[in-house]
Amino acid sequence: MLSKTYTKYIQSLHHKKFRDLENAFIAEGSKVVMDLLTSSKIVCERLLATKEWLAENEQQIRKYSPAPMEAIEGFELEKISALSTSNQVLGVFKKIKASSIDPRGKITLVLDTIQDPGNLGTIIRIADWFGVPAIICSEDCVDWYNPKVVQSTMGSLGRVDLIYTNLADWLKKNSTVNVYAAALNGSGIDGIKGIKEGIILIGNESKGISEEILQLANEKITIPKIGAAESLNAAVATGIILSHIF
Amino acid sequence: MLSKTYTKYIQSLHHKKFRDLENAFIAEGSKVVMDLLTSSKIVCERLLATKEWLAENEQQIRKYSPAPMEAIEGFELEKISALSTSNQVLGVFKKIKASSIDPRGKITLVLDTIQDPGNLGTIIRIADWFGVPAIICSEDCVDWYNPKVVQSTMGSLGRVDLIYTNLADWLKKNSTVNVYAAALNGSGIDGIKGIKEGIILIGNESKGISEEILQLANEKITIPKIGAAESLNAAVATGIILSHIF
Repeated sequence: MLSKTYTKYIQSLHHKKFRDLENAFIAEGSKVVMDLLTSSKIVCERLLATKEWLAENEQQIRKYSPAPMEAIEGFELEKISALSTSNQVLGVFKKIKASSIDPRGKITLVLDTIQDPGNLGTIIRIADWFGVPAIICSEDCVDWYNPKVVQSTMGSLGRVDLIYTNLADWLKKNSTVNVYAAALNGSGIDGIKGIKEGIILIGNESKGISEEILQLANEKITIPKIGAAESLNAAVATGIILSHIF
Repeated sequence: MLSKTYTKYIQSLHHKKFRDLENAFIAEGSKVVMDLLTSSKIVCERLLATKEWLAENEQQIRKYSPAPMEAIEGFELEKISALSTSNQVLGVFKKIKASSIDPRGKITLVLDTIQDPGNLGTIIRIADWFGVPAIICSEDCVDWYNPKVVQSTMGSLGRVDLIYTNLADWLKKNSTVNVYAAALNGSGIDGIKGIKEGIILIGNESKGISEEILQLANEKITIPKIGAAESLNAAVATGIILSHIF
Protein backbone atom coordinates (compact mmCIF):
# COMPACT_ATOMS: atom_id res chain seq x y z
CA MET A 1 0.00 0.00 0.00
CA LEU A 2 1.42 3.33 -1.09
CA SER A 3 1.38 6.09 1.55
CA LYS A 4 -0.63 9.23 0.91
CA THR A 5 2.52 11.32 1.20
CA TYR A 6 4.47 9.33 -1.37
CA THR A 7 1.44 9.30 -3.71
CA LYS A 8 1.31 13.08 -3.48
CA TYR A 9 5.07 13.30 -3.97
CA ILE A 10 4.87 11.30 -7.21
CA GLN A 11 1.92 13.33 -8.45
CA SER A 12 3.91 16.50 -7.79
CA LEU A 13 6.61 15.16 -10.15
CA HIS A 14 4.13 15.51 -13.03
CA HIS A 15 5.03 19.20 -12.85
CA LYS A 16 8.36 20.78 -13.79
CA LYS A 17 8.46 23.03 -10.73
CA PHE A 18 8.48 20.03 -8.39
CA ARG A 19 10.81 17.96 -10.58
CA ASP A 20 13.32 20.81 -10.28
CA LEU A 21 12.72 21.15 -6.56
CA GLU A 22 13.00 17.43 -5.81
CA ASN A 23 15.65 16.76 -8.44
CA ALA A 24 13.66 13.69 -9.50
CA PHE A 25 11.41 12.50 -12.33
CA ILE A 26 9.15 9.58 -13.18
CA ALA A 27 9.18 7.08 -16.03
CA GLU A 28 6.47 4.56 -16.88
CA GLY A 29 6.13 1.34 -18.80
CA SER A 30 8.29 -1.77 -18.96
CA LYS A 31 10.49 -0.76 -21.89
CA VAL A 32 11.34 2.74 -20.68
CA VAL A 33 11.83 1.77 -17.03
CA MET A 34 14.02 -1.25 -17.87
CA ASP A 35 16.20 0.85 -20.16
CA LEU A 36 16.68 3.51 -17.48
CA LEU A 37 17.50 0.87 -14.86
CA THR A 38 20.29 -0.51 -17.03
CA SER A 39 21.76 2.96 -17.60
CA SER A 40 24.85 3.48 -15.53
CA LYS A 41 24.18 7.21 -15.33
CA ILE A 42 20.72 7.23 -13.78
CA VAL A 43 19.85 6.27 -10.20
CA CYS A 44 16.45 4.79 -9.38
CA GLU A 45 14.93 6.02 -6.13
CA ARG A 46 12.00 3.63 -6.04
CA LEU A 47 10.20 1.19 -8.34
CA LEU A 48 6.44 0.69 -8.04
CA ALA A 49 4.85 -2.11 -10.00
CA THR A 50 2.16 -4.77 -9.97
CA LYS A 51 2.99 -8.05 -8.21
CA GLU A 52 2.94 -9.81 -11.59
CA TRP A 53 5.39 -7.40 -13.21
CA LEU A 54 7.82 -7.66 -10.29
CA ALA A 55 7.67 -11.46 -10.30
CA GLU A 56 8.54 -11.44 -13.97
CA ASN A 57 11.33 -8.84 -13.90
CA GLU A 58 12.93 -8.78 -10.46
CA GLN A 59 15.73 -11.19 -11.27
CA GLN A 60 16.64 -9.29 -14.44
CA ILE A 61 16.64 -5.94 -12.63
CA ARG A 62 18.91 -7.17 -9.84
CA LYS A 63 21.65 -7.70 -12.41
CA TYR A 64 21.83 -3.95 -12.97
CA SER A 65 20.24 -2.04 -10.16
CA PRO A 66 19.81 -2.16 -6.38
CA ALA A 67 16.62 -0.05 -6.69
CA PRO A 68 14.07 -0.53 -3.90
CA MET A 69 10.96 -2.21 -5.31
CA GLU A 70 7.40 -2.29 -4.07
CA ALA A 71 4.33 -4.15 -5.31
CA ILE A 72 1.24 -1.97 -5.50
CA GLU A 73 -2.29 -2.40 -6.85
CA GLY A 74 -3.49 -1.37 -10.32
CA PHE A 75 -5.69 1.40 -8.92
CA GLU A 76 -2.68 2.86 -7.10
CA LEU A 77 -0.66 2.90 -10.32
CA GLU A 78 -3.52 4.69 -12.00
CA LYS A 79 -3.44 7.37 -9.31
CA ILE A 80 0.25 8.13 -9.72
CA SER A 81 0.45 7.75 -13.52
CA ALA A 82 0.91 10.83 -15.71
CA LEU A 83 -0.38 8.94 -18.74
CA SER A 84 -3.95 8.50 -19.88
CA THR A 85 -3.48 4.74 -19.66
CA SER A 86 -1.34 3.68 -16.75
CA ASN A 87 1.27 0.95 -17.07
CA GLN A 88 2.34 -1.98 -14.95
CA VAL A 89 5.37 -0.16 -13.61
CA LEU A 90 6.42 3.35 -12.62
CA GLY A 91 9.91 4.30 -11.53
CA VAL A 92 11.05 7.37 -9.62
CA PHE A 93 14.52 8.38 -10.79
CA LYS A 94 17.03 11.01 -9.75
CA LYS A 95 17.68 13.65 -12.41
CA ILE A 96 21.17 13.72 -13.84
CA LYS A 97 23.14 16.85 -14.46
CA ALA A 98 25.22 16.72 -17.60
CA SER A 99 28.50 18.50 -17.20
CA SER A 100 29.42 21.04 -19.85
CA ILE A 101 29.39 19.68 -23.37
CA ASP A 102 32.36 20.02 -25.72
CA PRO A 103 31.24 19.93 -29.39
CA ARG A 104 34.75 19.53 -30.84
CA GLY A 105 35.39 16.41 -32.90
CA LYS A 106 31.78 15.23 -32.93
CA ILE A 107 28.24 15.95 -34.10
CA THR A 108 26.12 17.90 -31.61
CA LEU A 109 22.43 18.81 -31.82
CA VAL A 110 21.27 22.27 -30.76
CA LEU A 111 17.52 22.82 -30.34
CA ASP A 112 15.99 26.29 -30.42
CA THR A 113 12.59 26.34 -28.64
CA ILE A 114 11.35 22.80 -29.33
CA GLN A 115 8.06 22.85 -27.47
CA ASP A 116 6.26 19.62 -28.26
CA PRO A 117 7.15 16.87 -25.73
CA GLY A 118 6.71 14.15 -28.38
CA ASN A 119 9.12 15.96 -30.70
CA LEU A 120 11.83 16.35 -28.04
CA GLY A 121 11.47 12.70 -27.00
CA THR A 122 11.69 11.55 -30.60
CA ILE A 123 14.75 13.75 -31.22
CA ILE A 124 16.52 12.22 -28.18
CA ARG A 125 15.70 8.76 -29.59
CA ILE A 126 17.08 9.77 -33.02
CA ALA A 127 20.27 11.13 -31.42
CA ASP A 128 20.69 7.82 -29.62
CA TRP A 129 20.14 5.88 -32.88
CA PHE A 130 22.85 7.81 -34.71
CA GLY A 131 25.21 7.90 -31.76
CA VAL A 132 25.03 11.67 -31.24
CA PRO A 133 26.28 12.03 -27.67
CA ALA A 134 24.78 15.37 -26.64
CA ILE A 135 21.92 17.82 -27.19
CA ILE A 136 21.98 21.51 -26.24
CA CYS A 137 18.50 22.95 -25.58
CA SER A 138 17.52 26.59 -25.41
CA GLU A 139 16.10 27.51 -22.01
CA ASP A 140 12.55 27.63 -23.41
CA CYS A 141 12.60 24.10 -24.83
CA VAL A 142 10.15 21.70 -23.15
CA ASP A 143 11.60 20.02 -20.03
CA TRP A 144 13.21 16.72 -20.96
CA TYR A 145 11.99 15.19 -17.68
CA ASN A 146 8.37 15.92 -18.70
CA PRO A 147 6.59 12.50 -18.50
CA LYS A 148 5.58 12.71 -22.17
CA VAL A 149 9.17 13.38 -23.23
CA VAL A 150 10.45 10.52 -21.07
CA GLN A 151 7.80 8.26 -22.64
CA SER A 152 8.62 9.10 -26.24
CA THR A 153 12.38 8.71 -25.81
CA MET A 154 11.65 4.97 -25.49
CA GLY A 155 14.51 4.53 -23.07
CA SER A 156 17.16 6.58 -24.89
CA LEU A 157 17.16 9.12 -22.07
CA GLY A 158 20.05 7.55 -20.20
CA ARG A 159 22.28 7.46 -23.26
CA VAL A 160 22.23 11.07 -24.48
CA ASP A 161 23.49 14.10 -22.51
CA LEU A 162 21.26 17.18 -22.43
CA ILE A 163 21.89 20.66 -21.13
CA TYR A 164 19.63 23.72 -21.08
CA THR A 165 21.44 26.96 -21.67
CA ASN A 166 21.46 30.31 -23.41
CA LEU A 167 22.07 29.23 -27.03
CA ALA A 168 23.66 32.45 -28.22
CA ASP A 169 26.23 32.39 -25.41
CA TRP A 170 26.93 28.69 -25.91
CA LEU A 171 27.38 29.02 -29.68
CA LYS A 172 29.72 31.99 -29.27
CA LYS A 173 31.79 30.08 -26.72
CA ASN A 174 32.15 27.19 -29.19
CA SER A 175 32.63 29.22 -32.34
CA THR A 176 35.49 27.07 -33.65
CA VAL A 177 32.91 24.40 -34.59
CA ASN A 178 30.85 24.88 -37.77
CA VAL A 179 27.14 25.49 -37.23
CA TYR A 180 24.67 24.07 -39.80
CA ALA A 181 21.15 25.50 -39.48
CA ALA A 182 18.14 23.54 -40.76
CA ALA A 183 16.27 26.24 -42.66
CA LEU A 184 14.01 26.58 -45.68
CA ASN A 185 16.27 28.45 -48.07
CA GLY A 186 19.71 26.90 -47.66
CA SER A 187 21.86 24.56 -49.68
CA GLY A 188 21.11 20.85 -50.15
CA ILE A 189 21.96 18.28 -47.51
CA ASP A 190 24.48 16.42 -49.65
CA GLY A 191 27.12 18.92 -48.52
CA ILE A 192 27.08 17.62 -44.95
CA LYS A 193 27.63 13.98 -45.92
CA GLY A 194 30.40 12.47 -43.87
CA ILE A 195 31.30 15.51 -41.76
CA LYS A 196 32.96 14.44 -38.50
CA GLU A 197 32.41 17.64 -36.55
CA GLY A 198 29.52 20.07 -36.55
CA ILE A 199 26.66 21.64 -34.68
CA ILE A 200 23.23 20.93 -36.19
CA LEU A 201 20.75 23.65 -35.35
CA ILE A 202 17.02 22.77 -35.32
CA GLY A 203 14.32 25.40 -34.83
CA ASN A 204 10.89 25.73 -33.30
CA GLU A 205 7.98 23.70 -34.76
CA SER A 206 6.24 26.68 -36.31
CA LYS A 207 8.63 29.64 -36.14
CA GLY A 208 11.89 27.92 -37.05
CA ILE A 209 15.19 29.23 -35.73
CA SER A 210 15.14 32.66 -34.12
CA GLU A 211 16.90 35.46 -35.99
CA GLU A 212 19.54 36.01 -33.28
CA ILE A 213 20.57 32.35 -33.32
CA LEU A 214 20.40 31.97 -37.10
CA GLN A 215 23.00 34.73 -37.45
CA LEU A 216 25.47 32.54 -35.58
CA ALA A 217 25.18 29.74 -38.16
CA ASN A 218 27.94 29.21 -40.74
CA GLU A 219 25.67 27.52 -43.26
CA LYS A 220 21.97 26.96 -43.90
CA ILE A 221 20.97 23.47 -45.01
CA THR A 222 17.63 22.48 -46.54
CA ILE A 223 15.97 19.13 -47.15
CA PRO A 224 15.03 19.20 -50.85
CA LYS A 225 11.27 19.50 -51.36
CA ILE A 226 9.48 17.96 -54.32
CA GLY A 227 5.84 18.24 -53.26
CA ALA A 228 3.76 20.99 -51.69
CA ALA A 229 3.95 20.60 -47.90
CA GLU A 230 5.01 23.82 -46.21
CA SER A 231 7.38 22.23 -43.73
CA LEU A 232 8.52 18.99 -42.17
CA ASN A 233 8.04 17.99 -38.55
CA ALA A 234 11.09 19.06 -36.49
CA ALA A 235 11.91 15.51 -35.39
CA VAL A 236 11.58 14.15 -38.94
CA ALA A 237 13.89 16.89 -40.23
CA THR A 238 16.44 16.04 -37.52
CA GLY A 239 16.31 12.36 -38.51
CA ILE A 240 16.77 13.11 -42.19
CA ILE A 241 19.72 15.47 -41.61
CA LEU A 242 21.53 13.06 -39.28
CA SER A 243 20.94 10.15 -41.66
CA HIS A 244 22.72 12.12 -44.39
CA ILE A 245 25.70 12.87 -42.15
CA PHE A 246 26.27 9.30 -40.99
CA MET B 1 -26.03 30.58 -32.82
CA LEU B 2 -25.34 26.96 -33.61
CA SER B 3 -28.36 24.65 -33.37
CA LYS B 4 -28.32 21.80 -30.87
CA THR B 5 -28.73 19.29 -33.68
CA TYR B 6 -25.77 20.58 -35.68
CA THR B 7 -23.65 20.79 -32.51
CA LYS B 8 -24.44 17.11 -31.84
CA TYR B 9 -23.76 16.25 -35.47
CA ILE B 10 -20.28 17.79 -35.29
CA GLN B 11 -19.54 16.11 -31.97
CA SER B 12 -20.53 12.77 -33.52
CA LEU B 13 -17.83 13.33 -36.17
CA HIS B 14 -15.22 13.00 -33.42
CA HIS B 15 -15.87 9.26 -33.78
CA LYS B 16 -14.98 7.06 -36.74
CA LYS B 17 -18.34 5.27 -36.78
CA PHE B 18 -20.19 8.52 -37.46
CA ARG B 19 -17.56 9.88 -39.86
CA ASP B 20 -18.13 6.74 -41.93
CA LEU B 21 -21.91 7.01 -41.62
CA GLU B 22 -22.07 10.71 -42.50
CA ASN B 23 -19.18 10.58 -44.97
CA ALA B 24 -17.80 13.74 -43.38
CA PHE B 25 -14.97 14.87 -41.10
CA ILE B 26 -13.84 17.97 -39.23
CA ALA B 27 -10.66 20.01 -39.40
CA GLU B 28 -9.61 22.78 -37.02
CA GLY B 29 -7.26 25.72 -37.02
CA SER B 30 -6.48 28.38 -39.57
CA LYS B 31 -3.59 26.65 -41.34
CA VAL B 32 -5.26 23.26 -41.77
CA VAL B 33 -8.69 24.64 -42.72
CA MET B 34 -7.27 27.12 -45.25
CA ASP B 35 -5.18 24.39 -46.88
CA LEU B 36 -8.20 22.10 -47.20
CA LEU B 37 -10.33 24.91 -48.62
CA THR B 38 -7.80 25.52 -51.38
CA SER B 39 -7.68 21.81 -52.25
CA SER B 40 -9.60 21.10 -55.42
CA LYS B 41 -10.40 17.58 -54.19
CA ILE B 42 -12.15 18.34 -50.92
CA VAL B 43 -15.59 19.90 -50.52
CA CYS B 44 -16.40 21.99 -47.47
CA GLU B 45 -19.89 21.48 -46.05
CA ARG B 46 -19.80 24.31 -43.54
CA LEU B 47 -17.29 26.65 -41.95
CA LEU B 48 -17.75 27.78 -38.35
CA ALA B 49 -15.51 30.52 -37.03
CA THR B 50 -15.28 33.54 -34.78
CA LYS B 51 -16.45 36.82 -36.24
CA GLU B 52 -12.88 38.11 -36.16
CA TRP B 53 -11.50 35.14 -38.09
CA LEU B 54 -14.19 35.42 -40.77
CA ALA B 55 -13.62 39.14 -41.18
CA GLU B 56 -9.93 38.48 -41.72
CA ASN B 57 -10.21 35.50 -44.07
CA GLU B 58 -13.52 35.69 -45.95
CA GLN B 59 -12.16 37.46 -49.00
CA GLN B 60 -9.27 35.03 -49.34
CA ILE B 61 -11.56 31.99 -48.99
CA ARG B 62 -13.98 33.21 -51.65
CA LYS B 63 -11.18 32.93 -54.22
CA TYR B 64 -11.19 29.16 -53.78
CA SER B 65 -14.37 27.95 -52.17
CA PRO B 66 -18.09 28.67 -52.07
CA ALA B 67 -18.30 27.06 -48.59
CA PRO B 68 -21.17 28.32 -46.39
CA MET B 69 -19.72 30.26 -43.46
CA GLU B 70 -21.16 31.10 -40.09
CA ALA B 71 -19.86 33.23 -37.23
CA ILE B 72 -20.17 31.57 -33.84
CA GLU B 73 -19.03 32.35 -30.32
CA GLY B 74 -15.85 31.08 -28.69
CA PHE B 75 -17.78 28.92 -26.24
CA GLU B 76 -19.60 27.24 -29.14
CA LEU B 77 -16.29 26.46 -30.84
CA GLU B 78 -15.09 24.93 -27.59
CA LYS B 79 -18.14 22.67 -27.52
CA ILE B 80 -17.61 21.27 -31.00
CA SER B 81 -13.79 21.09 -30.92
CA ALA B 82 -12.07 17.70 -30.73
CA LEU B 83 -8.86 19.34 -29.48
CA SER B 84 -7.92 20.17 -25.94
CA THR B 85 -7.52 23.80 -26.98
CA SER B 86 -10.12 24.90 -29.49
CA ASN B 87 -9.22 27.09 -32.44
CA GLN B 88 -10.78 30.09 -34.12
CA VAL B 89 -12.20 28.03 -36.94
CA LEU B 90 -13.63 24.57 -37.53
CA GLY B 91 -14.61 23.22 -40.93
CA VAL B 92 -16.90 20.31 -41.74
CA PHE B 93 -15.67 18.61 -44.91
CA LYS B 94 -16.94 15.78 -47.09
CA LYS B 95 -14.68 12.74 -47.10
CA ILE B 96 -13.05 11.94 -50.41
CA LYS B 97 -12.79 8.47 -51.81
CA ALA B 98 -9.56 7.86 -53.66
CA SER B 99 -10.05 5.66 -56.66
CA SER B 100 -7.76 2.65 -56.98
CA ILE B 101 -4.07 3.52 -56.86
CA ASP B 102 -1.62 2.39 -59.54
CA PRO B 103 1.93 2.14 -58.13
CA ARG B 104 3.65 1.76 -61.50
CA GLY B 105 6.19 4.41 -62.43
CA LYS B 106 6.17 6.10 -59.04
CA ILE B 107 7.02 5.81 -55.36
CA THR B 108 4.12 4.60 -53.19
CA LEU B 109 3.97 4.26 -49.40
CA VAL B 110 2.32 1.19 -47.85
CA LEU B 111 1.58 1.31 -44.11
CA ASP B 112 1.02 -1.85 -42.07
CA THR B 113 -0.95 -1.11 -38.87
CA ILE B 114 0.22 2.43 -38.10
CA GLN B 115 -1.84 3.17 -35.01
CA ASP B 116 -0.66 6.49 -33.64
CA PRO B 117 -2.66 9.41 -35.12
CA GLY B 118 0.34 11.75 -34.87
CA ASN B 119 2.50 9.29 -36.79
CA LEU B 120 -0.03 8.86 -39.62
CA GLY B 121 -0.52 12.62 -39.89
CA THR B 122 3.23 13.21 -39.97
CA ILE B 123 3.69 10.49 -42.62
CA ILE B 124 1.04 12.15 -44.83
CA ARG B 125 2.90 15.45 -44.42
CA ILE B 126 6.21 13.75 -45.32
CA ALA B 127 4.62 12.16 -48.42
CA ASP B 128 3.38 15.59 -49.47
CA TRP B 129 6.88 17.10 -48.93
CA PHE B 130 8.55 14.52 -51.17
CA GLY B 131 5.75 14.48 -53.73
CA VAL B 132 4.65 10.90 -53.04
CA PRO B 133 1.14 10.86 -54.53
CA ALA B 134 -0.47 7.98 -52.65
CA ILE B 135 -0.49 5.97 -49.42
CA ILE B 136 -1.99 2.48 -49.03
CA CYS B 137 -3.07 1.71 -45.45
CA SER B 138 -3.88 -1.67 -43.95
CA GLU B 139 -7.44 -1.86 -42.71
CA ASP B 140 -6.29 -1.62 -39.08
CA CYS B 141 -4.34 1.62 -39.53
CA VAL B 142 -5.77 4.58 -37.60
CA ASP B 143 -8.51 6.43 -39.54
CA TRP B 144 -7.00 9.29 -41.51
CA TYR B 145 -10.07 11.42 -40.81
CA ASN B 146 -9.39 11.14 -37.06
CA PRO B 147 -9.19 14.78 -35.84
CA LYS B 148 -5.67 14.23 -34.48
CA VAL B 149 -4.50 12.86 -37.83
CA VAL B 150 -6.11 15.75 -39.70
CA GLN B 151 -4.39 18.14 -37.30
CA SER B 152 -0.91 16.69 -37.66
CA THR B 153 -1.04 16.57 -41.48
CA MET B 154 -0.81 20.38 -41.32
CA GLY B 155 -2.98 20.68 -44.41
CA SER B 156 -1.32 18.01 -46.57
CA LEU B 157 -4.49 15.92 -46.44
CA GLY B 158 -5.91 17.27 -49.68
CA ARG B 159 -2.73 16.59 -51.64
CA VAL B 160 -2.09 12.89 -50.95
CA ASP B 161 -4.42 10.01 -51.93
CA LEU B 162 -5.14 7.38 -49.28
CA ILE B 163 -6.91 4.06 -49.49
CA TYR B 164 -7.58 1.43 -46.82
CA THR B 165 -7.38 -2.11 -48.09
CA ASN B 166 -6.17 -5.65 -47.46
CA LEU B 167 -2.41 -5.19 -47.93
CA ALA B 168 -1.63 -8.78 -48.95
CA ASP B 169 -4.23 -8.70 -51.72
CA TRP B 170 -3.13 -5.26 -52.90
CA LEU B 171 0.58 -6.19 -52.98
CA LYS B 172 -0.15 -9.43 -54.88
CA LYS B 173 -2.23 -7.50 -57.41
CA ASN B 174 0.68 -5.09 -57.96
CA SER B 175 3.50 -7.60 -57.88
CA THR B 176 5.29 -6.13 -60.91
CA VAL B 177 6.46 -3.26 -58.69
CA ASN B 178 9.40 -3.86 -56.31
CA VAL B 179 8.55 -3.81 -52.61
CA TYR B 180 11.16 -2.39 -50.17
CA ALA B 181 10.41 -3.20 -46.54
CA ALA B 182 11.79 -0.98 -43.75
CA ALA B 183 13.11 -3.61 -41.35
CA LEU B 184 15.91 -4.01 -38.81
CA ASN B 185 18.11 -6.57 -40.58
CA GLY B 186 18.13 -5.51 -44.22
CA SER B 187 20.63 -3.87 -46.53
CA GLY B 188 21.62 -0.19 -46.27
CA ILE B 189 19.47 2.58 -47.70
CA ASP B 190 22.02 3.69 -50.28
CA GLY B 191 20.67 1.00 -52.61
CA ILE B 192 17.37 2.81 -53.07
CA LYS B 193 18.93 6.13 -54.03
CA GLY B 194 17.31 7.47 -57.18
CA ILE B 195 14.81 4.66 -57.80
CA LYS B 196 11.87 5.91 -59.85
CA GLU B 197 9.40 3.16 -59.02
CA GLY B 198 8.86 1.22 -55.81
CA ILE B 199 6.60 0.41 -52.92
CA ILE B 200 8.01 1.43 -49.52
CA LEU B 201 6.60 -0.74 -46.75
CA ILE B 202 6.48 0.71 -43.20
CA GLY B 203 5.41 -1.38 -40.20
CA ASN B 204 3.66 -0.93 -36.90
CA GLU B 205 5.22 1.29 -34.19
CA SER B 206 6.18 -1.57 -31.92
CA LYS B 207 5.69 -4.81 -33.87
CA GLY B 208 7.07 -3.76 -37.24
CA ILE B 209 5.76 -5.36 -40.44
CA SER B 210 3.63 -8.48 -40.01
CA GLU B 211 5.16 -11.78 -41.18
CA GLU B 212 2.57 -12.32 -43.93
CA ILE B 213 3.23 -8.92 -45.48
CA LEU B 214 7.01 -9.05 -45.04
CA GLN B 215 7.10 -12.20 -47.17
CA LEU B 216 5.74 -10.18 -50.09
CA ALA B 217 8.69 -7.77 -49.99
CA ASN B 218 11.48 -8.07 -52.57
CA GLU B 219 14.08 -6.42 -50.37
CA LYS B 220 14.58 -5.38 -46.76
CA ILE B 221 16.15 -1.97 -46.17
CA THR B 222 17.61 -0.71 -42.91
CA ILE B 223 18.63 2.74 -41.72
CA PRO B 224 22.22 2.28 -40.46
CA LYS B 225 22.43 2.51 -36.68
CA ILE B 226 25.49 3.87 -34.88
CA GLY B 227 24.19 4.30 -31.34
CA ALA B 228 22.07 2.17 -29.03
CA ALA B 229 18.40 3.07 -29.61
CA GLU B 230 16.31 0.00 -30.33
CA SER B 231 14.25 1.52 -33.10
CA LEU B 232 13.30 4.75 -34.81
CA ASN B 233 9.85 6.35 -34.77
CA ALA B 234 7.84 5.12 -37.81
CA ALA B 235 7.35 8.62 -39.23
CA VAL B 236 11.04 9.49 -38.79
CA ALA B 237 12.03 6.26 -40.56
CA THR B 238 9.65 7.09 -43.42
CA GLY B 239 11.17 10.55 -43.75
CA ILE B 240 14.73 9.22 -43.79
CA ILE B 241 13.96 6.55 -46.40
CA LEU B 242 12.15 8.95 -48.72
CA SER B 243 14.93 11.54 -48.36
CA HIS B 244 17.42 8.94 -49.61
CA ILE B 245 15.27 8.08 -52.65
CA PHE B 246 14.70 11.64 -53.79
